[in-house]
Amino acid sequence: MRIDIISVVPKLMESFFAHSILKRGQEAGHVEVVLHDLRDYSVNKHRQVDDYAFGGGAGMVLGIEPIARCIRALQSERTYDEVIYMTPDGETFNQRIANQLSLGGNLIFLCGHYKGVDQRVRDLFITREISIGDYVLSGGELAAAVCADAIIRLLPGVLNDETSALTDSFQDNLLAPPVYTRPAEFEGSKVPEILLSGHEAKITDWRFSQAIERTRTRRPDLLEGME
Amino acid sequence: MRIDIISVVPKLMESFFAHSILKRGQEAGHVEVVLHDLRDYSVNKHRQVDDYAFGGGAGMVLGIEPIARCIRALQSERTYDEVIYMTPDGETFNQRIANQLSLGGNLIFLCGHYKGVDQRVRDLFITREISIGDYVLSGGELAAAVCADAIIRLLPGVLNDETSALTDSFQDNLLAPPVYTRPAEFEGSKVPEILLSGHEAKITDWRFSQAIERTRTRRPDLLEGME
Repeated sequence: MRIDIISVVPKLMESFFAHSILKRGQEAGHVEVVLHDLRDYSVNKHRQVDDYAFGGGAGMVLGIEPIARCIRALQSERTYDEVIYMTPDGETFNQRIANQLSLGGNLIFLCGHYKGVDQRVRDLFITREISIGDYVLSGGELAAAVCADAIIRLLPGVLNDETSALTDSFQDNLLAPPVYTRPAEFEGSKVPEILLSGHEAKITDWRFSQAIERTRTRRPDLLEGME
Repeated sequence: MRIDIISVVPKLMESFFAHSILKRGQEAGHVEVVLHDLRDYSVNKHRQVDDYAFGGGAGMVLGIEPIARCIRALQSERTYDEVIYMTPDGETFNQRIANQLSLGGNLIFLCGHYKGVDQRVRDLFITREISIGDYVLSGGELAAAVCADAIIRLLPGVLNDETSALTDSFQDNLLAPPVYTRPAEFEGSKVPEILLSGHEAKITDWRFSQAIERTRTRRPDLLEGME
């Protein structure tokens, strides 16, 4: 899988892809992440990529020409499954979409910035619009990094322990049960005895009932789809 | 406002806070963001901060002792409004929560990693648990950066144009209308004529009707609260 991320401030994402599992995933050859500076595709000598909005109003808008040049240059080199625009009015990202995109091929992420991109970019080049949640960020860079992280960690071989991702919250419509580690007692606060018992079957039952209880209390909406 | 972020891989977030509006917000004195390496608070010489889960199973768990030391050290220096744990089973972050937290005082963000933190950390030290969406990330670092970004851009003086944040999606329960910038024609694709007309009142009406239409099509749930 190859992931290309187009941004007006690609530096913002550098540390993220240089560490943690994303670095490991790239080093092991599971994924290649390439950051593109939109200014490299500017059509003028000042490397300008934004301009005032037609009709007036606050905030700058990313123009269509540099974006078109960048996307077309990438598409001339390989095939992409999706050209994704990160925007607060897109489809809300969730684990199902992460699972789906992790099974596919190459992806382009276009990061909005300022007041967004010229609508014609969305009409002509974008195949999917994704939001990571109902809040506004200073740009799509963090959002693209969030999507890339959620997708890349699902690629086989990226996580140390292959079974680890399968027990995450949301993979079975349940929130994860509480976890505990040493010390068994901290300032009088103890680990539930069942977890120290060594009864594997009872521990599995306890975790399942805790997961159900936590989901019922915090996110009853997740259980509705299961009934 | 001061934001302290506790993480086992703080380097992952460095570039976010070194660029863009987050840098500007810090330089202008609106906010101070301090990243803390949890390993600096480890209680053993190997700087270990995680351990196997009691009861077995895949994935490591962040232990309570280093976290307790770090949070207590911070709390001994100043008062915090909230000690927030970033976790997929927390309250779902949205613009309302961003607005609310941007009005408050100092915040601590604790980033989960691996399978999460010892439940006793949550029981004893955490005042609020926040999720940025229904998906699992490799750690809470990106989630904390997302929250910090959404909050910091709302602080007065951080954005270049103070009116800019008020016209964002979600601030009025409406998605933002489409935006356009030069050129007026791109390969035969034109900007809507109304935006070139100079009729300010008509443009305002057009944008409002476009915002309503986009919200009705994409996110009818946002309109329900308005009726």
